[in-house]
Amino acid sequence: MSHENPVIETIKRRRSIRHFSREPVSEEVINQILESGGWAPSGQNNQPWKFAIIQDKGLKESLAALTHSRAIIQGAPVCIAIFLDHSKSYDRTKDVQAIGASIQNMLLTIHALGLGGVWLGEILKNKDKVGELLETPKELELMAVVAFGHSDRPPERGKRDPIEKKVFLRK
Amino acid sequence: MSHENPVIETIKRRRSIRHFSREPVSEEVINQILESGGWAPSGQNNQPWKFAIIQDKGLKESLAALTHSRAIIQGAPVCIAIFLDHSKSYDRTKDVQAIGASIQNMLLTIHALGLGGVWLGEILKNKDKVGELLETPKELELMAVVAFGHSDRPPERGKRDPIEKKVFLRK
Repeated sequence: MSHENPVIETIKRRRSIRHFSREPVSEEVINQILESGGWAPSGQNNQPWKFAIIQDKGLKESLAALTHSRAIIQGAPVCIAIFLDHSKSYDRTKDVQAIGASIQNMLLTIHALGLGGVWLGEILKNKDKVGELLETPKELELMAVVAFGHSDRPPERGKRDPIEKKVFLRK
Repeated sequence: MSHENPVIETIKRRRSIRHFSREPVSEEVINQILESGGWAPSGQNNQPWKFAIIQDKGLKESLAALTHSRAIIQGAPVCIAIFLDHSKSYDRTKDVQAIGASIQNMLLTIHALGLGGVWLGEILKNKDKVGELLETPKELELMAVVAFGHSDRPPERGKRDPIEKKVFLRK
């Protein structure tokens, strides 16, 4: 049954975590999360992702100022900014899907290691400013920021449509 | 250590599986895979995915004719076609990322259940023809096909760049 499989459990129990304790996150854990991101599948195995890891308080403050999710970034011990590397890109739709798979690998790993994290997208409205702030090579385009750390409160409940509503053909 | 965490293990050991035995896949397993797909995160929780499940031999034959990956689709007991639902869409980049996360959840679940699967993208060149074949509502756009079943041979080795090559900033 699904409830005995740890992967399915993690997929179903992962929630967006927006509040963090002050407990730091070790380099080893950060690297495990990045490794998982790197093991996502991608079209032609082009691995079109690049990462920036942000822990510096001043830099986080500047990043936080570029989004409504300000308090989340300020409160998270670590942020990973995920970029699409246009020098690796061969098909935008497929590459952006691969980026989504990479982010999901990281979120599942964060959850599986007992931490909590959240995928932030609203900051994309300021993607050029984020690029300037992080002195990003010009071939990189911001795709998302994942903020994470140790959670200091229970997660919210997740809501999803019944899966049958999402299936339009079975043949 | 990462090697003791079943989620990280699954993320790192998942491979594209392109050859399948004749062993059928139960409805229960298909539904578990779909459920996992439905638990992906999405911007504003818009859940922009829709699925078509294809097991009928004749329909698989017609689908197979639309891609170079013909033999994979012919040999797979089940194919799930994943669509972006434009009636739910609010930002193409974020929605396509969410689709990628949903596909990755399904691939990880396939692997975690002891089956094998592969993400097929080349068929997108014929996305309109796939839509006609599956009598797809006009607001749906094909994003990928996942073909899966029980594997009948050991997986190929995966190759990834060292993760440090993918990190351009640590601060």
